[in-house]
Amino acid sequence: MKTYINPDRNTWTDILKRPLFDVSELYGRVQNILTEIREQGDVKLLEYTERFDGVKLDKFQVSAEEIANAEAAVDQELKAAITMATDNINAFHNAQKPEVRKMETMPGVACWQKPVAIEKVGLYIPGGTAPLFSTVLMLALPAKIAGCKQIVLCSPPDKNGNIHPAILYAAKVAGVTQIYKLGGVQAIGAMAYGTETVPKTYKIFGPGNQYVTAAKQLVSMNEVSIDMPAGPSEVLVVADETSNPAFVASDLLSQAEHGADSQVVLVANNEKTLKEVIAEVETQVAQLPRKELAKKALSNSVLIVVTDDTNRVDLINEYAPEHLIISTKNYMELAEKITNAGSVFLGEFTPESAGDYASGTNHTLPTNGWARSYSGVNLDSFLKKITFQEISEEGLLAIGPAIEKMATTEQLEAHKNAVTLRLKYLAD
Amino acid sequence: MKTYINPDRNTWTDILKRPLFDVSELYGRVQNILTEIREQGDVKLLEYTERFDGVKLDKFQVSAEEIANAEAAVDQELKAAITMATDNINAFHNAQKPEVRKMETMPGVACWQKPVAIEKVGLYIPGGTAPLFSTVLMLALPAKIAGCKQIVLCSPPDKNGNIHPAILYAAKVAGVTQIYKLGGVQAIGAMAYGTETVPKTYKIFGPGNQYVTAAKQLVSMNEVSIDMPAGPSEVLVVADETSNPAFVASDLLSQAEHGADSQVVLVANNEKTLKEVIAEVETQVAQLPRKELAKKALSNSVLIVVTDDTNRVDLINEYAPEHLIISTKNYMELAEKITNAGSVFLGEFTPESAGDYASGTNHTLPTNGWARSYSGVNLDSFLKKITFQEISEEGLLAIGPAIEKMATTEQLEAHKNAVTLRLKYLAD
Repeated sequence: MKTYINPDRNTWTDILKRPLFDVSELYGRVQNILTEIREQGDVKLLEYTERFDGVKLDKFQVSAEEIANAEAAVDQELKAAITMATDNINAFHNAQKPEVRKMETMPGVACWQKPVAIEKVGLYIPGGTAPLFSTVLMLALPAKIAGCKQIVLCSPPDKNGNIHPAILYAAKVAGVTQIYKLGGVQAIGAMAYGTETVPKTYKIFGPGNQYVTAAKQLVSMNEVSIDMPAGPSEVLVVADETSNPAFVASDLLSQAEHGADSQVVLVANNEKTLKEVIAEVETQVAQLPRKELAKKALSNSVLIVVTDDTNRVDLINEYAPEHLIISTKNYMELAEKITNAGSVFLGEFTPESAGDYASGTNHTLPTNGWARSYSGVNLDSFLKKITFQEISEEGLLAIGPAIEKMATTEQLEAHKNAVTLRLKYLAD
Repeated sequence: MKTYINPDRNTWTDILKRPLFDVSELYGRVQNILTEIREQGDVKLLEYTERFDGVKLDKFQVSAEEIANAEAAVDQELKAAITMATDNINAFHNAQKPEVRKMETMPGVACWQKPVAIEKVGLYIPGGTAPLFSTVLMLALPAKIAGCKQIVLCSPPDKNGNIHPAILYAAKVAGVTQIYKLGGVQAIGAMAYGTETVPKTYKIFGPGNQYVTAAKQLVSMNEVSIDMPAGPSEVLVVADETSNPAFVASDLLSQAEHGADSQVVLVANNEKTLKEVIAEVETQVAQLPRKELAKKALSNSVLIVVTDDTNRVDLINEYAPEHLIISTKNYMELAEKITNAGSVFLGEFTPESAGDYASGTNHTLPTNGWARSYSGVNLDSFLKKITFQEISEEGLLAIGPAIEKMATTEQLEAHKNAVTLRLKYLAD
């Protein structure tokens, strides 16, 4: 853990530098696989699934029987937890529904935006030992609320050709319409181009390793949109003399266990708190099953004392953390000054885990400083807004001459003419 | 003009195929210029401005004096038109302001989204003979309403080192904070990385040629977000026996004059209307100053008769036009079934030019089928939404066990521990 006491403002960028997350060196190899999938479809999906996932499949689509078996395999306690999380995620995302607000910008000129669901969306859920069923909920529930008609999910099969029951159960609960046993570049290619089996989708969501990220970037150029750029997960915790050092340490560690490249930052307003947190981290890390990973992430972690209030706010906003935990007494005062962050956790009883799983907010959030310009996934991510305008004769008479003048200045005579013809007709 | 009468559904994709707009073959050259700008800053901006724009500049930033001169050079009629457009654009985008909706997903678990402006945005306005001052209004006015602090505008200088007065005047009216004489890849690089003179921005907006598009795509991988993928402009006009063929023809032509790669589509419900429109197009095109361009675009245009109502809706939604003009009697009936379009123009007195300039809706819209997943530029484009959550002791007691169970299932013990520690504390 690196510690800094009131570092000079011009050193912040260096101190808070994230590891470069540039996957462009993978583009060549990934593009080749994508091109093969685009041109040859299912046969290439089979081939790459056998090569990368080590399993030969007859078919990719998960059957109703497999889903029923998964449901039977999930214990009641997990089902109850998923139900609670589902209810909260639904409540929060339902409240985000935009209204159609029709207005007249001037008499006779009516304009409105209409939110419409993206018809087909693709969700990617990584494999590995831990089944990320929580991400299924975070992506599929808002898609369902938005009204997406096809909600396609891809997740890699294990060596036996199965997807973890918790993922299948969460997908069923959340309203996924089709589930395919496909991982990595194959999954992204299938959902971007469509194959004999997998439908083409219009927007692809979800986390993944560097190959998945490269594939998402490449297909987003010409084929399909994506949720946001990916990068390693991050937390910045703000603490003061009133914070519980054990709670703060546990929050830092819950980020650190994600992986060696996780970014963990503590900002305290005094040195005593910083030292107490360090002591707690050392105690707690020793008890973690993933302690090797966590220790590696901690070695890159940054603990900073910033005594000046304004500097503290500026430093946080400059870093633009994915997760921001404000564990101080007057947390709301600081929260109101935050302009760059993905999701903010307020007070000592709001750990990041709450938002990761069950508070109702989304856990798919902008990393790597993207919080300066991106929102996390939310209901908007599954909608687009179509604008409408309806102009009456009166409206066109009022607005027409301005349009003619502007079109003439831009040397677009046919644009002008579309108005001139109509104004002449109205004058006759 | 190619005409089709009730084409079979499985031929639609071919009939409505857009020209491939893939700029990836430019990436190598464009990346080299971007890298030089990133590494060497202003000196490279000067060099490339001299090479590509043919003018040697002492400084890039437009001075207050130049803006004052521009204001004096713009005639009163254009100023009045810009004022009307500004008022309407402001009215429509002001009405899009999202509210903060705080809610409890369950007792003691408060969640909300807070919209916050993107602090620094970059706007690109292409050069050329016609000054696209309308695009300045479409991008800068919503940025100002959103509350963006720095609104940076780049536009290439002419051979004398000047930007057209209408662009400078519109920029002043709309609240642009800095204007730079920079075009093409140089402008995008400068706003993506920042140089000695030009500030780094967090999101870049605006149209441009294929080099600008390639540069925007490349910097969007790692540096800065962008408004949307670019492509040639398009219109689809729907007509029936009640439509005025002259109006319809003028709308088709106002799209065609944009350039040889513009996409122009007519969908009529009967052959007579189609023939009347063709006759009108031929009469009107002969009178246009840009008739050569328009004729070229028309040679790629597609005129289709679809007599079946359902098929007509499906064909439109499958094409996902940037601009959709519904010039039929019962236009609202059709409008309600539209799920993929950028901006929709309703009735015979609502030409596309109205939305291009002054109705109040935005004219920066998704082309090339991107309307399936993208909105046009709107107030949201200049905001991100930060989520907040605040959990009370009561709330954590209720939600905590579900989080513990989910974290354990995902094998994230430190995530669980952050809750367990707090629950123990509350139990003591």
